[in-house]
Amino acid sequence: MKCRKCGATAAINMRQHKLALCEEHFLEWMPEQTQRFVEKYRMFAPEDKILVAVSGGKDSLSLWDILHRLGYHADGLYIGLGIDGRRSSSEEGIGYSDESRRLSEKFAAERGLTLHVVEVEATYGATIPELAVISHRGRDKPCAVCGLNKRYIMNRAAHDGGYNVLATGHNLDDEVAVLMQNTLNWASGYLVRQAPVLEANRPGLARKVKPLCRFYEREMAAYAIVRGIEYIYDECPHAVGSTTLYYKEILNQLEEKRPGAKLQFYLSFLQAKEQGLFALQADDAELHACEKCGQPTSAPGECSFCRLWDKVRAVKGARLPLPALPTIEISD
Amino acid sequence: MKCRKCGATAAINMRQHKLALCEEHFLEWMPEQTQRFVEKYRMFAPEDKILVAVSGGKDSLSLWDILHRLGYHADGLYIGLGIDGRRSSSEEGIGYSDESRRLSEKFAAERGLTLHVVEVEATYGATIPELAVISHRGRDKPCAVCGLNKRYIMNRAAHDGGYNVLATGHNLDDEVAVLMQNTLNWASGYLVRQAPVLEANRPGLARKVKPLCRFYEREMAAYAIVRGIEYIYDECPHAVGSTTLYYKEILNQLEEKRPGAKLQFYLSFLQAKEQGLFALQADDAELHACEKCGQPTSAPGECSFCRLWDKVRAVKGARLPLPALPTIEISD
Repeated sequence: MKCRKCGATAAINMRQHKLALCEEHFLEWMPEQTQRFVEKYRMFAPEDKILVAVSGGKDSLSLWDILHRLGYHADGLYIGLGIDGRRSSSEEGIGYSDESRRLSEKFAAERGLTLHVVEVEATYGATIPELAVISHRGRDKPCAVCGLNKRYIMNRAAHDGGYNVLATGHNLDDEVAVLMQNTLNWASGYLVRQAPVLEANRPGLARKVKPLCRFYEREMAAYAIVRGIEYIYDECPHAVGSTTLYYKEILNQLEEKRPGAKLQFYLSFLQAKEQGLFALQADDAELHACEKCGQPTSAPGECSFCRLWDKVRAVKGARLPLPALPTIEISD
Repeated sequence: MKCRKCGATAAINMRQHKLALCEEHFLEWMPEQTQRFVEKYRMFAPEDKILVAVSGGKDSLSLWDILHRLGYHADGLYIGLGIDGRRSSSEEGIGYSDESRRLSEKFAAERGLTLHVVEVEATYGATIPELAVISHRGRDKPCAVCGLNKRYIMNRAAHDGGYNVLATGHNLDDEVAVLMQNTLNWASGYLVRQAPVLEANRPGLARKVKPLCRFYEREMAAYAIVRGIEYIYDECPHAVGSTTLYYKEILNQLEEKRPGAKLQFYLSFLQAKEQGLFALQADDAELHACEKCGQPTSAPGECSFCRLWDKVRAVKGARLPLPALPTIEISD
């Protein structure tokens, strides 16, 4: 297989695009494509201040790398969730969250980039797994609680830090797995909101963008490897056996049978929405300001983030402060 | 496993309903459920004249059996497609279409029911596989041409025979396979129209109903076997390797992992539609009368059925008549 651009030996063959590229041209092609998507979906402009949610994985670090190379003003946000992943403290290695923080900080330091770190335990008083146990929300699987916290902290950090755009590293496989889940249940509210851009159409909400939403997971892995980005290989230990990973397998079967099936699923969805398939709009839901923290929430009263941490305080018997701002450290 | 109604040994366990039944109570349950669906989706009333599209398979014969037992006025329509399925004429056995006609006629004769037969070759001058070759529409796979012909002939036979309802034996597995296909491509027009009932909201269109749309394929097979209905076991030879069968496999994997997944997919789709997810309506398309046959068609001029057979006439050099009515034979 030869590179389409120079005829050298190809490093990657993307069957869905009928495109094979050598390392050099693949490293060129990925940022070019990203820029195309940024423009096509009107994600942000050169003057925007972007906060990249960084997990230490291949997607978010590659996203940060690409945005930096494209010349955007993009800082990072690492949220320390306190996930260990070792079956016991005597097991070798370090915990999942510690390792992902280390790799995120290393990445930022090597490139002289700004990384904000919010440690959930230090800031709010418990790790995500503890929070799941205390709140009785998914004892074995803290994923719902984790998602809620990440969404809250990302939005709040963007708002408080003066960023007008929040970028996440969701790739196409992530997006189609969620799309399949939402479709198998015909979850109207989620279907209507799923998009490469979620506009900041309410006060206190950051505009959310997914610049990698059209790249396959394997393209992202290839980019990180060829670019020499050191990232955490493991999935979050709590993701093992998750519905999302299961849908990814199913979608990979469909892709195997018909190359491009995943991309077609996603693009035809966006197109159908664009052409007015849905009667509802993403911003039909009314938003309120949380009585306690002031962040936007769908129901009047306290937001679900504050209610969750209220429970922790009740159980732990302590009055942990809800800080006005997340703890922000500048890595260099 | 015991029957929930009488405690006898169960003949079938339906995990998605958490319901096990013995043969006797299963044979009772299926028509009861069918009647429930007929009422719930307002398919038809006792005074309606129903034409059941009969293929000789388990679904359509069981549907006819159930509607007859429920006391409805339901006649059958068999469409002879001229599909052989033997690899050569020296192979043993008789052709697929011949066998399905024989079983349909046997079923009707044993119960004193009226079966109309339309043989495509005798009526229009070519078999479906010949038609596919002549028209260059799917030489290896005559399925598109076949579907077009069946829809046309069913609708026309219902209309010309004075039936106001056309019932087909589509089961849940059929419906969810189509739903998955339409969803993976986000085929808005099809998504909006897919329903247990397609209203006869235009002159010349029969109301189409699918009374079995909530029964799993294995329930239908169990019903036919336990009821002692002799049906054709084979799939249509042209269906082998079809996308629909492939999606059925994928959906069976999902069902295996989460019993009830297929039913949930279908019911949540119907519910989302009912609750107004889609902006478009099923009857938004304008219909015209075909210049040649007068049947409803989406584009002005000749309908695609007439255009297809025009091609055959051009190639065969003969002026085959388009009969005013399909040939209708009464079996007894």
